[in-house]
Amino acid sequence: MLQLEEIITDTSRLFVGDAVPDLYFHDTYVKNIKPVYAVALPKTHDEVKALVQFAIEKDLVIIARGAGTGVAGAQVPIQGNELIIDVHLMDKIIELDEETLTLTVEPGVLVGDIHDYVEKKGYFYPPDPASKHSTIGGNVATNAGGLRAVKYGTTRDYVREMTVVLSNGEEMTLGSLNIKSSSGYDLKDLFIGSEGTLGITTNIRLKLVPLPKANVTILQAFETVQQATEATLEILKSGADPSGVELFERSALYYAEQNLGYPLKSQVGEAYLMISLDGNDQTELDHRIELVESVTSELILESHVLTADEAKKNWALRDNILLGLTKFTEFELLDEVVPINKFAELIESTKAMQDKNGLNVLNFGHAGDGNVHTLLMKDDLTEDQWTERRAALLKDLYQKVDELGGLPSAEHGIGIVKKDYMDTMTKDINLDYMRQIKRVFDPDNRLNPGKVF
Amino acid sequence: MLQLEEIITDTSRLFVGDAVPDLYFHDTYVKNIKPVYAVALPKTHDEVKALVQFAIEKDLVIIARGAGTGVAGAQVPIQGNELIIDVHLMDKIIELDEETLTLTVEPGVLVGDIHDYVEKKGYFYPPDPASKHSTIGGNVATNAGGLRAVKYGTTRDYVREMTVVLSNGEEMTLGSLNIKSSSGYDLKDLFIGSEGTLGITTNIRLKLVPLPKANVTILQAFETVQQATEATLEILKSGADPSGVELFERSALYYAEQNLGYPLKSQVGEAYLMISLDGNDQTELDHRIELVESVTSELILESHVLTADEAKKNWALRDNILLGLTKFTEFELLDEVVPINKFAELIESTKAMQDKNGLNVLNFGHAGDGNVHTLLMKDDLTEDQWTERRAALLKDLYQKVDELGGLPSAEHGIGIVKKDYMDTMTKDINLDYMRQIKRVFDPDNRLNPGKVF
Repeated sequence: MLQLEEIITDTSRLFVGDAVPDLYFHDTYVKNIKPVYAVALPKTHDEVKALVQFAIEKDLVIIARGAGTGVAGAQVPIQGNELIIDVHLMDKIIELDEETLTLTVEPGVLVGDIHDYVEKKGYFYPPDPASKHSTIGGNVATNAGGLRAVKYGTTRDYVREMTVVLSNGEEMTLGSLNIKSSSGYDLKDLFIGSEGTLGITTNIRLKLVPLPKANVTILQAFETVQQATEATLEILKSGADPSGVELFERSALYYAEQNLGYPLKSQVGEAYLMISLDGNDQTELDHRIELVESVTSELILESHVLTADEAKKNWALRDNILLGLTKFTEFELLDEVVPINKFAELIESTKAMQDKNGLNVLNFGHAGDGNVHTLLMKDDLTEDQWTERRAALLKDLYQKVDELGGLPSAEHGIGIVKKDYMDTMTKDINLDYMRQIKRVFDPDNRLNPGKVF
Repeated sequence: MLQLEEIITDTSRLFVGDAVPDLYFHDTYVKNIKPVYAVALPKTHDEVKALVQFAIEKDLVIIARGAGTGVAGAQVPIQGNELIIDVHLMDKIIELDEETLTLTVEPGVLVGDIHDYVEKKGYFYPPDPASKHSTIGGNVATNAGGLRAVKYGTTRDYVREMTVVLSNGEEMTLGSLNIKSSSGYDLKDLFIGSEGTLGITTNIRLKLVPLPKANVTILQAFETVQQATEATLEILKSGADPSGVELFERSALYYAEQNLGYPLKSQVGEAYLMISLDGNDQTELDHRIELVESVTSELILESHVLTADEAKKNWALRDNILLGLTKFTEFELLDEVVPINKFAELIESTKAMQDKNGLNVLNFGHAGDGNVHTLLMKDDLTEDQWTERRAALLKDLYQKVDELGGLPSAEHGIGIVKKDYMDTMTKDINLDYMRQIKRVFDPDNRLNPGKVF
């Protein structure tokens, strides 16, 4: 049997027991203080296979980890006997194939680096999660979404082929370069979004599309979230084909404006939409801008077609909502999703929950696909108040999401922080079959046990 | 225990033993002469559940069937103890929900009727399999594609939610009205394309998009298939965003021209592309037509932007390839798929196979997604020659498809006719996990046994 030091011969890529750095015990928000067996940083597919073999022989459990930018605790150790396989050094962009419009990458490549790389060559990788420092492997593990999902879909829609190492140390390639398939069961989509519980991804071939040649952003102000949501539906039905429809409350923007030191272009109303359009040229966009403005004309207070410079500054405000907040208070970020016609009702319902539970709540999110980012704010609550009130509000919130036909996570994953809600909100029969599928691929429960369900 | 006559009380919806009509022993091309236990035509989800319960108690196997327009034998009985559940009377369009842009249907609704229904209301259901008389349940079972997959994807991309009856008689709902999900394993995509081997679909909620307001077709002629394929790639890379890129050989069109009695608009060259574009208005299309013509200018012999009337007549020729052929010879229709850059190589390779095996071959297909419809023609071969030469050619062909990284079926399914090739072309480990998943959902192998793998 190979020892860890024989698999990862470069000692700078191996941390055992007490030598494991603190960063491996937390992600963006979730901390855990358990020890782990070791952390190994492979650079090749074969090293990953050998590490899995080692874990089998030592009866360790395995957590695959990328950049550690997760927010649901999926990569945080909880058992004490984990071998953490950190793939962030597997960061090679292997091949841009312009004949199949695909990009082959290792799992540790950052999604921001993928964007930069392909856009320089005239291509586009649409999934656009907020964290550009997240790895593509992590994006696949959570089926990451982002701002452009309304037009382009999520990570799932851009994985043509992936190679995984399974819990028994074998490898399997899922999907193919073929665009269509009616040749047996779709195993690939089972692995996408499975949060490291079915296999460890070591190679991914991504679908690319041509880079849009023109972009524009429209900022619209509304009296209420309800009206902004109605406008969203009208825009979606119009054929204007927006690449993003972002909604935020006036109150959510306050911190970003304070932080960046300049105001949003519109200062009226309680809710805003930022609508992005992309296409082949400005003429095409002009017509679609007209479409957006005409179908929303009776709902808006103001509508601004932003200049490139304004767009940059106003998007920076939108992107700064979380960062701005960080300077004022601790918070918890959620990513619940509901059918698009329930978006306003969900946001409205959080007002009553806020009053009932004594906890401030803000909302922003991807109105075009029903995905709300609700923020629970600690403000000046004591730790005990924060823990207690937050738990009470979360219970109310997820119950409401469930009533509206929603799901606990749109794009961040379940990890450990949403497990209980996932359990409550998912039918027993669906959970039972998920567990049976887990047993098919991982009979010893070795891969990221205790996560998701 | 309920008897069949107690479940289906209307005797016109029940055929037992010798009373089973001949149509249930074949699909479009595949015939089988085995007897079956019975055929039942339920009208409700509850009748389907009761029928599955009956099959369990009598230890019958179940084939779910729709319009019988399949081409791979997936719905043809092969065991002799089948209970065929024909869902084509479950043909209600239940609800158009304009707030979630979804259409809820029963599985027996014809896809052509879905197109007509939603287009009248300004919506669009993009998947467009050649047979408008196929049921949506069958489309889901095979992940049907069609002419518009290059822009819009396949049936898989339009199923938001589906309810299935499982082999144990329980029901399960897969997917949801939510547009994004990172909440557990994707069971829905496992069922789509599973050809009736995992469950019987009784209710489907389909995603709709706004109906494009303008359409245009460009017909381009090329000296060779290779040049037509190169042009396809240039078009895909240009940002022109075609909704269809169909390729056919001059020789494949001969029979359609004879049958319809008029010629294709272009009579030069050996290969043609018919490129369709859709969008919001003619101005937008004009620009995209220019894009197509500019990126293909060095490859074409001729390019025609068709008038509406010409488009109709020329598409009719394309759609008549199979029907035209029927009047001249028996044939076998394939639906292999390869990565788009291998499309020309595959088609070229069939010429040598034709000469080697003494069997005429024609090709047409969806160049935009690498899906070739190869036609093997019986012409004046004897039955024995036809059987023998066809088998030899199929072996060569699928071997070549495999070499090129392709798959045996893009959109028709494996059924029984492609099982051996599926077996040869799929890695053992993938097949093994497919079989294990089959056992999870159908431990008694009751649902469509002997199909796919």
